[in-house]
Amino acid sequence: MPRGPVRLLSAGTALPGPPIDTAALAGRFGMDHLWQQWVDTFIGTKTRHLAVDLATGEPGQSLADLGYIAAAKALERARISAEDVDVVVLGTATPDDLMPATVNVIADRLRIDGVPTFQLQSGCSGAVQTFDVATSLLATGRYRTALVIGGDVIAKHYDVNVKLAAVPPRELVNFVLFGDGAGAAVLSTEDRPDAPVVRAVLTRLTGLDREPGQVLRWFGLVDRDGPVVAAQEDYKAIEESVPQMSEEVVDELLDDLDWQRAEVDYLLPPQLSVAMTTKITSRLNLPSAREISCVESTGNNGNALLFFQLDQLLEIVSGPAKVLAVAIESSKWIKSGLALERA
Amino acid sequence: MPRGPVRLLSAGTALPGPPIDTAALAGRFGMDHLWQQWVDTFIGTKTRHLAVDLATGEPGQSLADLGYIAAAKALERARISAEDVDVVVLGTATPDDLMPATVNVIADRLRIDGVPTFQLQSGCSGAVQTFDVATSLLATGRYRTALVIGGDVIAKHYDVNVKLAAVPPRELVNFVLFGDGAGAAVLSTEDRPDAPVVRAVLTRLTGLDREPGQVLRWFGLVDRDGPVVAAQEDYKAIEESVPQMSEEVVDELLDDLDWQRAEVDYLLPPQLSVAMTTKITSRLNLPSAREISCVESTGNNGNALLFFQLDQLLEIVSGPAKVLAVAIESSKWIKSGLALERA
Repeated sequence: MPRGPVRLLSAGTALPGPPIDTAALAGRFGMDHLWQQWVDTFIGTKTRHLAVDLATGEPGQSLADLGYIAAAKALERARISAEDVDVVVLGTATPDDLMPATVNVIADRLRIDGVPTFQLQSGCSGAVQTFDVATSLLATGRYRTALVIGGDVIAKHYDVNVKLAAVPPRELVNFVLFGDGAGAAVLSTEDRPDAPVVRAVLTRLTGLDREPGQVLRWFGLVDRDGPVVAAQEDYKAIEESVPQMSEEVVDELLDDLDWQRAEVDYLLPPQLSVAMTTKITSRLNLPSAREISCVESTGNNGNALLFFQLDQLLEIVSGPAKVLAVAIESSKWIKSGLALERA
Repeated sequence: MPRGPVRLLSAGTALPGPPIDTAALAGRFGMDHLWQQWVDTFIGTKTRHLAVDLATGEPGQSLADLGYIAAAKALERARISAEDVDVVVLGTATPDDLMPATVNVIADRLRIDGVPTFQLQSGCSGAVQTFDVATSLLATGRYRTALVIGGDVIAKHYDVNVKLAAVPPRELVNFVLFGDGAGAAVLSTEDRPDAPVVRAVLTRLTGLDREPGQVLRWFGLVDRDGPVVAAQEDYKAIEESVPQMSEEVVDELLDDLDWQRAEVDYLLPPQLSVAMTTKITSRLNLPSAREISCVESTGNNGNALLFFQLDQLLEIVSGPAKVLAVAIESSKWIKSGLALERA
């Protein structure tokens, strides 16, 4: 197999249902106008998509449903057929089942078979982790083309009958921050000069002696009588650490590539919330970089986010461009980022 | 970094609690002597270890607990310190939580930090998948040493109050087949001539248009009123397909390496049950191969199994040897295998 640089040929995305605005959430969960103002001011996320019918609690699309749609789009845009996919990597925190891995259900629907498939259990750094694994596999020369997918359906954890007014503030925020969705991208060593080259991928566990900033539980039978609250965040720790860790990722990538700060044309920053993204971006000191964000309309949909940003990027980029993406996972603290360059 | 061949430096394993024999299971779950005979005859698994107190239902060791013990052993045996580990890959079907990924909890306890970590959501092929990802990462030359871990704690799904006599036979078998445990290995491009070289790793999704042979559910809130049976197997499909797929793996590995059947010194076969392993091994036609199995005493502990076999292998192997390992995952049907060679 040829072993040219790995290129990003395409991206595709999928969202469940219509956008749900904060007023709709407030109405469903018995919150007042003041709460809406609080969300607008301190979170900034305006809408999100959820794979659950808020009226009835009926589950909506599965991760496999959304991942399939996103992946099919990405393959079509890359003009890559199922039989040309040599490896598939999915990142998610919320697989449909423990087994079979959702990646294999998606592969089956895409008619991909006879190839290695991997599913990473991952959070906000998951999309970058799929790039890390896929580009390493392509770099061995054993494969030419990888399909990478990321997505989350956090709605499985939604109790639609909860009264938000009775929920402690630290849990309340989960209802407005998160959303569901999936994204995908095609990576290949095929020589397509117009496609950006993946110049660097970086993932670093940075959790030594640190408490998790985010915990998401699943339920086995042993846990079934346990606490109902599945998702917990330590926002104080997140607010303190994520901007700093984002700077470290940018510095390491620039240093590795010998790029100057002023040379960066596009920045795809972390997407925890609009407020947090603004805070981070202002600190990164990339004077010429155009920000590409999606969280205001999609909410934080975890492993899908980066693909939404890449989708936007590929739509607008033309001519030479240097691109940095940063994602920080607060679970056990993972720094991650990637650098793309279009000739 | 140097880019020699990838070698298996060491393995380590961990089991929770004492071995539980079939008579003890029968006593706890109200089954009679006839049932014990049925298990002995058609399954053959004599004992298993479970991370749950069968008397009280209290959860025992977590996957992180077991993975840490196994990994610490493997590192010690390889004389590799935490700071020399460049990447960690864990395979499991039963993570402790959805986030943080258990791999990062284990890394933290081992004092490993600042490196990429990956957790694969995987079943019986998971250990080979960790080898596939880790050897690819090492082959890029960016890293020298990888710690790979595999394990499962299926006991999270155990309802210790169930009366087995009321459970349909297709579910009954889960109580005797499966066990808990973890294993680990150190892979490195360091030049250690006595350590076997990883000559080939193969993982192949083979699930096109096929129903899953094994399903393991997790429970989100949406599922909490759903069926209590989390694990389902299609044993007819497994009995039909797994021996055939094992042959295909062996044939592909031999063909890739240009090895003759008679040259294979050790065979590490799939470990679904003693009965199934015997059936498979008899078909593989490797006349000089010594079988290395553990399922009779460990039960099928999923992602841990291969590491128990490798641990045995490393204890007994001396002098030149060719080794084949095969694992088949019936979830969405994944063929996998690896080849080792000691000079």
